[in-house]
Amino acid sequence: MTITISVFESSPDEGQGHARDMRVRWALEEVGAEYQVRPLSMAELKQPAHRARHPFGKIPTYEDGEVTLFESGAIVLHIAEGHPGLLPRENSARTRAIAWMFAALSTVEPPIVEREASMILEKDRDWYAPRLAILDDNVRERLGELAVHLGEREWLEGEFSAGDLLMVTVLRRLEWSNSPDGPQLLDEFPSVAAYVERGKARPAFRRAFDAQHEQFMAGRG
Amino acid sequence: MTITISVFESSPDEGQGHARDMRVRWALEEVGAEYQVRPLSMAELKQPAHRARHPFGKIPTYEDGEVTLFESGAIVLHIAEGHPGLLPRENSARTRAIAWMFAALSTVEPPIVEREASMILEKDRDWYAPRLAILDDNVRERLGELAVHLGEREWLEGEFSAGDLLMVTVLRRLEWSNSPDGPQLLDEFPSVAAYVERGKARPAFRRAFDAQHEQFMAGRG
Repeated sequence: MTITISVFESSPDEGQGHARDMRVRWALEEVGAEYQVRPLSMAELKQPAHRARHPFGKIPTYEDGEVTLFESGAIVLHIAEGHPGLLPRENSARTRAIAWMFAALSTVEPPIVEREASMILEKDRDWYAPRLAILDDNVRERLGELAVHLGEREWLEGEFSAGDLLMVTVLRRLEWSNSPDGPQLLDEFPSVAAYVERGKARPAFRRAFDAQHEQFMAGRG
Repeated sequence: MTITISVFESSPDEGQGHARDMRVRWALEEVGAEYQVRPLSMAELKQPAHRARHPFGKIPTYEDGEVTLFESGAIVLHIAEGHPGLLPRENSARTRAIAWMFAALSTVEPPIVEREASMILEKDRDWYAPRLAILDDNVRERLGELAVHLGEREWLEGEFSAGDLLMVTVLRRLEWSNSPDGPQLLDEFPSVAAYVERGKARPAFRRAFDAQHEQFMAGRG
């Protein structure tokens, strides 16, 4: 049963691993599943062939011969349910890990993506500077709450889980959206920054990162 | 095993059922599970007692004696996994329904909430009008894609599922964020508007709506 995932032919982040296929690659590497990629151009994403896989014309998608899936959170959950290593076996711990998956995508990611979008799309608007200050504070609020929860913990709850995997990829987006002269928001919360580094140090993360980077370099060639 | 959910003592939407406890109430009504509520003031949400239940100090939370959960998506999934009626039995259909849960919360909700937040927080800013036009178009893009997917379908995939439950609550937020003289975005997409009405016509939705409305009226009393 071959797993195929759809990815950017040429990622807008230039191989820094911030596109959402990185989450799926990392999950597949954590559980030791092989996969192949379908690189798609921006134009191909919006074509009917891809819309049939993804109603919103985005990446990643996932196919394994039995099911076609979209939404990185759903794909990571599907992988985690089908293989050991990404969710605790005990029922209430498993449920808590899934709660953190939703927290990463529904509570922590939106203010980070909103800030990133403003930095890309609103840079030349009159309102850019005053709005960015507000958006920075929205992100700080979430990072502060996360720092309180983390305390001395290594991971969000007990062992590394799919909740950590998604949370680390969400927080890593702040690396990209930092302008050189802007506030390094992650650095204001050292325990959160250290948590992200722990995630990035996992061998499965490195393998996933290298694979998407190689993909980007090949697409550019 | 008594289920307790945390809700707003006095919902900012004044009992219109747009707060996220509505999703959990609706899910519990669909599966016929009894529950009790813990009404919390805005100040209580940020106190340590509630932070222990919800690291981000929000509603809803869920406790059943075995597990304490936060994030409405995770709570609805937990309810759906524990009772028949909200997820298909067949494995790939079940996985697709879960993909729609993530799509509702990760892809459709953020532009709707961003637009709503702008209407509440940026009304007096110079940039309000030009930004709102951009935010409207972001929402239109998602609604248009959803309309294409829906086509002649009654629900997102086959039978009503937890994916529809979340999607309908997300889309319903547009009712609230419409200013009287602003564009009625949902009405520009009749098949999506009709889909929302089908959700609202379900008896379980009505029971959940009435319960939260009664809660609001009591809290105001």
